[in-house]
Amino acid sequence: MTKKQIRMNAFDMNCVGHISHGMWTHPRDRSAHYTDIAYWQNLAVTLEKGLFDGLFIADIIGLYDVYKGGPETALLAGAQTPLNDPIVLAPIMAAVTKHLAFGITVNLTYEQPYLLARRFSTLDHLTRGRIGWNIVTGYLDSAARGLGGDKLPNHDARYDVADDFMEVVYKLWEGSWDDDAVLRDRERGVFADPAKVRRVTHRGPHYAVDAIHLSEPSPQRTPLLYQAGSSDRGRRFAADHAECIFVNGWNPKAMGVIVRDVRRRAMESGRRHDDIKAFAGISVVTAPTEAEARDKHAEYRRHASVEGALAHFSASIGLDLSRYGLDEPIGFVKNDANNSALEAITKRSPDKVWTVRGLREQMAAGLGSRHPPIVGSPSQVADQLVDWIEEADVDGFNLIRTVTPESVEDFVALVVPELQNRGLYKTAYEDGPIRQKLFGTPRLPARHRGASFRPGAGHRAAE
Amino acid sequence: MTKKQIRMNAFDMNCVGHISHGMWTHPRDRSAHYTDIAYWQNLAVTLEKGLFDGLFIADIIGLYDVYKGGPETALLAGAQTPLNDPIVLAPIMAAVTKHLAFGITVNLTYEQPYLLARRFSTLDHLTRGRIGWNIVTGYLDSAARGLGGDKLPNHDARYDVADDFMEVVYKLWEGSWDDDAVLRDRERGVFADPAKVRRVTHRGPHYAVDAIHLSEPSPQRTPLLYQAGSSDRGRRFAADHAECIFVNGWNPKAMGVIVRDVRRRAMESGRRHDDIKAFAGISVVTAPTEAEARDKHAEYRRHASVEGALAHFSASIGLDLSRYGLDEPIGFVKNDANNSALEAITKRSPDKVWTVRGLREQMAAGLGSRHPPIVGSPSQVADQLVDWIEEADVDGFNLIRTVTPESVEDFVALVVPELQNRGLYKTAYEDGPIRQKLFGTPRLPARHRGASFRPGAGHRAAE
Repeated sequence: MTKKQIRMNAFDMNCVGHISHGMWTHPRDRSAHYTDIAYWQNLAVTLEKGLFDGLFIADIIGLYDVYKGGPETALLAGAQTPLNDPIVLAPIMAAVTKHLAFGITVNLTYEQPYLLARRFSTLDHLTRGRIGWNIVTGYLDSAARGLGGDKLPNHDARYDVADDFMEVVYKLWEGSWDDDAVLRDRERGVFADPAKVRRVTHRGPHYAVDAIHLSEPSPQRTPLLYQAGSSDRGRRFAADHAECIFVNGWNPKAMGVIVRDVRRRAMESGRRHDDIKAFAGISVVTAPTEAEARDKHAEYRRHASVEGALAHFSASIGLDLSRYGLDEPIGFVKNDANNSALEAITKRSPDKVWTVRGLREQMAAGLGSRHPPIVGSPSQVADQLVDWIEEADVDGFNLIRTVTPESVEDFVALVVPELQNRGLYKTAYEDGPIRQKLFGTPRLPARHRGASFRPGAGHRAAE
Repeated sequence: MTKKQIRMNAFDMNCVGHISHGMWTHPRDRSAHYTDIAYWQNLAVTLEKGLFDGLFIADIIGLYDVYKGGPETALLAGAQTPLNDPIVLAPIMAAVTKHLAFGITVNLTYEQPYLLARRFSTLDHLTRGRIGWNIVTGYLDSAARGLGGDKLPNHDARYDVADDFMEVVYKLWEGSWDDDAVLRDRERGVFADPAKVRRVTHRGPHYAVDAIHLSEPSPQRTPLLYQAGSSDRGRRFAADHAECIFVNGWNPKAMGVIVRDVRRRAMESGRRHDDIKAFAGISVVTAPTEAEARDKHAEYRRHASVEGALAHFSASIGLDLSRYGLDEPIGFVKNDANNSALEAITKRSPDKVWTVRGLREQMAAGLGSRHPPIVGSPSQVADQLVDWIEEADVDGFNLIRTVTPESVEDFVALVVPELQNRGLYKTAYEDGPIRQKLFGTPRLPARHRGASFRPGAGHRAAE
């Protein structure tokens, strides 16, 4: 049995129904209060009590309007619709915690690197180094319509844009201000030493900048970088940039293939195996005994919105599942072009055959999601987590909420002590920024691509 | 003497030196701690204790690099350099206050209306209707360089873009979701009624959108709209959109001309005189007696950074004042093309003649700003505020910090009670969103341009 320390993040979104659709209708669920400051602060305090490393906040720009040809089902179910901005939640929760980090999803496609760099620097300052960025390049056509276009650009081209974007923000974060540029010298009246602040120049294929970074150096400079791409191009991007990757699914073996591939590619680029931490998305229904956990799952299940789950899944794969008969065979094939889902559906060359009836049953048992929760006593849950750590080669988990905050509170009260008793989970936070806690250093390691844009590092521009 | 209730905002920025340059070197000044959550929360609590309506947070994208041909002086003095993102401060301060509103400056030139609309809706939800937007179109060439261009677009053209931008966000805020669209009906499992949520379509000269607003209706829907443009085109924009205008300067008579002109133009567009509240920027040095106030001013003055003030002013007017001899005459002429400063400097046809020596003396007395503070006992300060209210035709003031938080604490402890004793200042907050407090209604009045994009209002698209 592994003695690797298990890392935990919570996984959430600034909306009612995130992944476990319909759970908001449960009498004890509070997610319909997602517009309250207290709702988020209470969650953060609970997570810090449970020594979670971070709260990962998803985002998606656009609506789930593929199923039945419109957004009606998503609106009815509150399935990531409405959906508020994630970035303004981090400072609210940082104000009532000391260690918990915040991984914020921002789609760079619609951002200016010069301004996004400042926003993350500001958050890194305010949180004292507890901010991460989940780098996303977007995937919904409805987002393109919201932003004035008709279709999103080609998937691989988006990653080329993203590489250029990253080069700009690395230059701003890592290269513009020396560590000792800011003196705060009241006696001499010198705030910063201009000789230690330099203009960043960039003339890339997509972005051009000729400016000093607006923010002074923050605890981490570059925020902790998350990425969740599973396509071939996405994995290459992750191997180049990501420090934490997030894999989703219900098959730890399949996850392990992706995780090992990203690690292999990263090592080919001069990074180390341990430079990347991988997290698997899971949901957990637990109670003091197995029987109670099964009862709780049955009770939650009565609130699952299969329609919400179908609306979500249809948008993820770009296929309107309402057009299929209950028992009509639907084939899945691997499709590298999709950033978020591992598979696309087509009637041609199926690797696997599904039916809407099967999906509906799966989604009911999955509490409004395609993926089944881990259900059991704390000891049974811990056993499964340990198995996943080994099979999927992950370092920890992103805990998906079901009934909230109950499911998070249960995990903290029951599973965390079980893992601690087994020596698999920390009993206190380490000090320092989130990168310090996870990787032992507050700044990007010298072998990370971003570090090459430090003064004197010698840009590896030829790569 | 007027019995009009005086409205107070604090005026600040997410940086060390905002307007009173050099004050950070004073032993009691805390502004060098601008990266701390506690610094901002303490300020907010002080302002709410003083029944301030709001905290107005300035922003500027770019550096002050005109003076001496580079950013060195601004860096040395900490003159709005470095400068962090303002928007993430609002939720931090909202978490520890109940009534204080936050007017956040966002330059729309670099934003996507679809996403900025969601960000403001999110903040309006979290703050329970305490968010305002100071609409800016930007003015520094250095910002354009940071964002990949060489020069900013023409001033008037920027306002045309802004009008198109505003139409998109009004449609999203006012027109996409009916008030009764969100049911939160756990029994029926209906979060929102799709029949009451509609797609917004916009094909303007600069922006196109075909989407549902991502956020459900917030307390104010459209955030309270601030604007500070003083040019002819800027005043027209303010008359069309602004609910609060901010005027700056040291001459209440000159301010009154602008304020009355904006109100006149607004009335020509069907708005009312009282639909616009005007605020004058002031700084105050006060103490229990006049002699103590004068001593405090003399003590503060020793920390003024005239160089920082010259760097700031040179960038504002686009002219490097280091190129002039101390006594060389410099002529000012009115220039409509500048969004921020009331004057531009040229050697031709001067309306007024200045020298660098004169400016330096003015900036020392002004505590690192061109504008002199009001210095005196609480009674003397109140007398001056009352005079300004009448002469400048303003509704209240934006209090510029000098030594911080001392200058704000002094105002709250000394001037607020004096105004209350005179019946000129509220003794308790009214309930409700900031627009309710200022204008008696939480939503835009029907005669505001934004209200014309409500369903059934009949778009005044022909205007």
